[in-house]
Amino acid sequence: MNQQVTYFQNLYLPQIEQTLEDYLGQIKGQASLKKAMQYSLKAGGKRIRPLLMLASLCALNGKIDQNSLQVAASLEMVHTYSLIHDDLPAMDNDDLRRGKPTNHKIFGEALAILAGDGLLTNAFDLILSTKLNPHLQVKLAQNLSRAAGVQGMVSGQVADMAGQGKQLSLESLKKLHNEKTGALLAYACQAGALLAGVDDNLVAKLSKFGLEFGLAFQIYDDILDVTKTTVELGKTAGKDVVEAKNTYVALLGLAGAKQELQATLSQATDVLADITLMGYDVTLLTGFLEYFEI
Amino acid sequence: MNQQVTYFQNLYLPQIEQTLEDYLGQIKGQASLKKAMQYSLKAGGKRIRPLLMLASLCALNGKIDQNSLQVAASLEMVHTYSLIHDDLPAMDNDDLRRGKPTNHKIFGEALAILAGDGLLTNAFDLILSTKLNPHLQVKLAQNLSRAAGVQGMVSGQVADMAGQGKQLSLESLKKLHNEKTGALLAYACQAGALLAGVDDNLVAKLSKFGLEFGLAFQIYDDILDVTKTTVELGKTAGKDVVEAKNTYVALLGLAGAKQELQATLSQATDVLADITLMGYDVTLLTGFLEYFEI
Repeated sequence: MNQQVTYFQNLYLPQIEQTLEDYLGQIKGQASLKKAMQYSLKAGGKRIRPLLMLASLCALNGKIDQNSLQVAASLEMVHTYSLIHDDLPAMDNDDLRRGKPTNHKIFGEALAILAGDGLLTNAFDLILSTKLNPHLQVKLAQNLSRAAGVQGMVSGQVADMAGQGKQLSLESLKKLHNEKTGALLAYACQAGALLAGVDDNLVAKLSKFGLEFGLAFQIYDDILDVTKTTVELGKTAGKDVVEAKNTYVALLGLAGAKQELQATLSQATDVLADITLMGYDVTLLTGFLEYFEI
Repeated sequence: MNQQVTYFQNLYLPQIEQTLEDYLGQIKGQASLKKAMQYSLKAGGKRIRPLLMLASLCALNGKIDQNSLQVAASLEMVHTYSLIHDDLPAMDNDDLRRGKPTNHKIFGEALAILAGDGLLTNAFDLILSTKLNPHLQVKLAQNLSRAAGVQGMVSGQVADMAGQGKQLSLESLKKLHNEKTGALLAYACQAGALLAGVDDNLVAKLSKFGLEFGLAFQIYDDILDVTKTTVELGKTAGKDVVEAKNTYVALLGLAGAKQELQATLSQATDVLADITLMGYDVTLLTGFLEYFEI
C-alpha cells in the first residue's frame, strides 16, 4: 500500500471500528447473539469495503462524517454476515477465517446462522438511522439490498456452489464473481459517490471501478490460495483445488491468472483515468490497487 | 373467521400472492435460488401478517393500493425466511411445514440457508421500490429491520433455543414470544397504521394490538401442538414435549394455557375498544381474533 492509503487507513479504521462498536453496544438483544456477531465483526477483517467507500467519497470531494461512517459500517456488517454463512458446514465448511476459528466452530451452527441473520437485518437499521436525507437513505438501502441479495451476492454464492466440480467458462466465472464479490464492492464505491452527491454518470463510473476491483480481488484470492500457506492466509490454503472449485488458476493456470489480474487492474486504472479527466484527484483510489501486488 | 374477514381474505389474498409472484418473477438471479424461495413462499401460508397489515390500514380508513400490497408482501418474505432458517437441522430440525417437506428437505441445507438470506435481503428491496414518500419508506424499512433483527425476531429465536430443556418463568416466556412472534405481528399492524397516516398515539395502539395478537398466536400454537395431530397441523405435532420446549402448556397446563389465551385476547379486545372510542370501525380486526377459537 502507498503512503496515502496507509495514512487514510490509520485515520479512518479506528472510526469504522468505533461506529460498529457503538451500534452493537447500543441495540437491545440476546447477549449470546451479540457476542457471536461481535466475534466475527472483530475477527480482524481488513475493512476493505468500508475503506473503499470512504475513499470514493473522499476522492469525489465529499465529507466523511457520522452518516457516511454508518453506511460504511453497515457494509462491513453485510460482508461479515456473508462470511459467517459461507463458512457453515452446509456451505464451504471452513474451520478458519482471518486466522481464527470460524463462527460456527465457536458458537455452534444455530447461533452462527442467527448471528449472520442479525448482522444482515441490522445493517439496514444502521443505514436507516443516519441523518441523511430520506431520498438518499432509500437509495442507499435499496441498492445495498440489490447488491447483497438475489440480484447479487446471494446468487453468486449459489452459482459458486453449483459450479463446484464442473468446468465453468471464463465468462461464467466472471459473472459468478461479479455477483459474489463484485456487487458489494461496486456498491461500496457507488455509495461513496452517492454520498458525495455527484451525477449519475460519475456514480456509474465508481460502480464500474468497484466491479473491476472486485474481480481483481477474486483473481488475487485465487492466486494466493495456491501460492501462500494457511498461516500466511489466515484461512485454509489449497482448499480450492481439493474442492474442485472454479478458480482463475484452475481455468487459466497460474501465469494465465496473473495475466488476467493485470488486465483487470488495467481496466480499473482506465476508469480512474476517466474520473481524473472529469477533474478529480484519484490518487487515493489508485493506491488501493496496489493491494494486488504479486 | 367471521364473514367480513372471509370477504377481506377472498379479496386481498390473490392480490398478495400476485404481488409476491410479480416481484420474484421480475428480479434477476439464479434459477435454483428463486425456485427454492418460491417453494416456501407458495407452500400454503395463511398470510396472516400481510392480511393483518392490510386490515389495520383498512380499519384506519387507509387505501389498499400497489404500495401497501408491496409492504404486505415484503412482510411475508421476512416471515418465510424465518421459517426456512428455523426449520434447519441446526435449529428446530423440522421435516414438515404447512403440510409439505421443509425447504432443506427438498433443496438441501445450503440452498435453504441462501433462500432464506435472499428472502430477507430482498424484502427490503420490495419495500424500498414502492412509490411511497421517502420519509415513510425509511420508517417502514427501519422498523422492519428492528422487528425482524437483533432487537426482535432473531433474538427471540436465540432465546427459544437457549431455553430448551430449562424451565422459564412466565415472564421470560412472554418476552421470548414477544420477540420471536410478537415483534413482526406488531410491525404488521404498525405498518398498516403508518400507511394510513394516523398519529403516533394510534400507531402505538395498533402496535400493541399486534403484540397481543402475536402472544395469542403463540399460546394458541402451543395448545394445538398437544391437541391436534400432525396431519391436522401440517407440521409435526407433539414436538414441543419431545424437545422439552418452553410452552404455555408445559408451564401452566392445558387449562392454564387456555385461560392465558383468553386473558391475552381480552387485552387485544381492550386495545380495539380504545381505537373504537377514537372513532374507527374495528369490526374487521375483531374478526381476526376469532382465529383463536378453541
